[in-house]
Amino acid sequence: MSVPEKTVLALDAHGGDQGLAVSVPAAIAALKEDTQLQIILTGDKNALREAILAVDASLENRFVIQHAESVIAMDANPADVLRRGRDSSMWKAFELVAGKEAAACVSGGSTTAMMVMGVKLLGMLPGIQRPALMAYVPNTRNYTGLLDLGANLKVTARQLVQFAVMGAVTAREVEGLTDPTVGLLNVGHEDSKGHNVVREAHGMLQDLPINYAGFIEGHDIFDGTVDIAVCDGFAGNLILKSTEGLARMMLTEFRNAVSGSLADETMAASSVRRVLARLDPAAHNGAPLLGLNGVAVKSHGGSDQKGLTRAILEAGREARRQVPGRIEASIHEYQLEAAS
Amino acid sequence: MSVPEKTVLALDAHGGDQGLAVSVPAAIAALKEDTQLQIILTGDKNALREAILAVDASLENRFVIQHAESVIAMDANPADVLRRGRDSSMWKAFELVAGKEAAACVSGGSTTAMMVMGVKLLGMLPGIQRPALMAYVPNTRNYTGLLDLGANLKVTARQLVQFAVMGAVTAREVEGLTDPTVGLLNVGHEDSKGHNVVREAHGMLQDLPINYAGFIEGHDIFDGTVDIAVCDGFAGNLILKSTEGLARMMLTEFRNAVSGSLADETMAASSVRRVLARLDPAAHNGAPLLGLNGVAVKSHGGSDQKGLTRAILEAGREARRQVPGRIEASIHEYQLEAAS
Repeated sequence: MSVPEKTVLALDAHGGDQGLAVSVPAAIAALKEDTQLQIILTGDKNALREAILAVDASLENRFVIQHAESVIAMDANPADVLRRGRDSSMWKAFELVAGKEAAACVSGGSTTAMMVMGVKLLGMLPGIQRPALMAYVPNTRNYTGLLDLGANLKVTARQLVQFAVMGAVTAREVEGLTDPTVGLLNVGHEDSKGHNVVREAHGMLQDLPINYAGFIEGHDIFDGTVDIAVCDGFAGNLILKSTEGLARMMLTEFRNAVSGSLADETMAASSVRRVLARLDPAAHNGAPLLGLNGVAVKSHGGSDQKGLTRAILEAGREARRQVPGRIEASIHEYQLEAAS
Repeated sequence: MSVPEKTVLALDAHGGDQGLAVSVPAAIAALKEDTQLQIILTGDKNALREAILAVDASLENRFVIQHAESVIAMDANPADVLRRGRDSSMWKAFELVAGKEAAACVSGGSTTAMMVMGVKLLGMLPGIQRPALMAYVPNTRNYTGLLDLGANLKVTARQLVQFAVMGAVTAREVEGLTDPTVGLLNVGHEDSKGHNVVREAHGMLQDLPINYAGFIEGHDIFDGTVDIAVCDGFAGNLILKSTEGLARMMLTEFRNAVSGSLADETMAASSVRRVLARLDPAAHNGAPLLGLNGVAVKSHGGSDQKGLTRAILEAGREARRQVPGRIEASIHEYQLEAAS
């Protein structure tokens, strides 16, 4: 009998808005759910030791603490990150992945800082220029992977095609989909719609051996038409944040409308709870930075314990399935490397 | 005592998915609500006469029927529109505005066809290259005007600034806001964020005497941070359609969750109904095409009677407040004309 291999993850323990109060319980919950995980917590060693003992001392031997002196500010610009970020808990987490001491890192800190450290410490896969950020959003049947979310504001057709391949590989390996469908977001379904860049990418995608569903429109993200929806980072960021804003508004209005009127034990109350749970950002937290030579997962800064646990488990699956290597192989096989 | 002036509107009676079954009752409801309106219905004269008599013969004298032989297909491309569209009900409606027989036109037909006819028959205001489409979306306190929604897929900084001015003028004149706030959509609030085009527009907007609130993010549309939110047509179209898709999904899930469990007379039921009414697309249907030398309002193709009535009333307000002339004056005053 073979012993299943351990997977070691690095967690930036100070990365979220609530720091250790969320990260330590989230790490403990992840260790309980995935018994092959080990977690290296990066941050203040004394505070971390206390926090672990306070929550659940029995798992102490599955934690390693890697001391870090500082925390990256949420509004740090790229120059600040490179100049003053080397002692931070986030930097230490990326360094552990770069040095192969961890198979993946997770942080709820600044996306900009994660991008900078990812490029600097892990490096890009051959032929990919910048990492793309992919989020999972709920649809009528499951979740749609949406990328890019802001790293690539202006894109070439080749970059859009790379996003499609990276998204499809991740969905296949991590979500276990046999042949995930990929759509290219545009202002209409017809071949003649859109600007030159999306039309050129549309032509390239039709020639690839992936399950390309053609142009899709904004509503298709939530209709569940495809598993992966691709667009440039400017539009993707606006889509993600506007739908988050709308969801928050609608949930608030509905909660106010029904609060106090649905007894906890009624059918309606349990149905409402099920809807809320599905739409809860925690249910789909954990956005991989794709295209890096290593696994890095961004957790929402405001995420609660449940959400951060989900992001940690996502990182574990990506590491085990060796997503970066599989992306590299597909990009190479399809001859999609950008000229450097 | 002065007699209030009549406002004559042209309505493309075959424009929506349900044709006369929606357009005639919607026109009648608009005439009842706004007693200074007169409506010229364009379409099949026999069918129109019958439809009016069947619904409410008492208003017959406030209708004029303008016969049209054909209807523009929803998927007509611009060449089709120009080659074969001249006998259509939509073309007749635009022609009435061009010939000053009507002060505004409304259609639920193809947006592409409306754009083509608007440019061809009404023409652009001096220094504006293409019309911009603005929709109203609900926010936590009222409605946000969002533009452009798909006519301008690639924009210059000057075009973004023109959108800002056109949106602000419309909100002031039609919605009665004294000094509407305008935000420029971007991937972050900081001056350093975004690509060159949005950063250049940001600089230009800071120098104008409008109530510019700076960069906003996607969630600000629904948080009600500003009255007008500006972006290029590619991102705007994706934002609008993705939020429509999400709203539809959430409403369906909530309706299913509470259906049968809230007695009609409970507080919760009436609160839920109020939330649904506010989020109902009919409550904010009617998207003006701004920048044309004349008023044209796009109604959602699938709109019900209530929604189309709202679009007709919106067109009436824009015509009375002479929105195109006021936009022209502001664009000229701020020296924003594009070189032609």
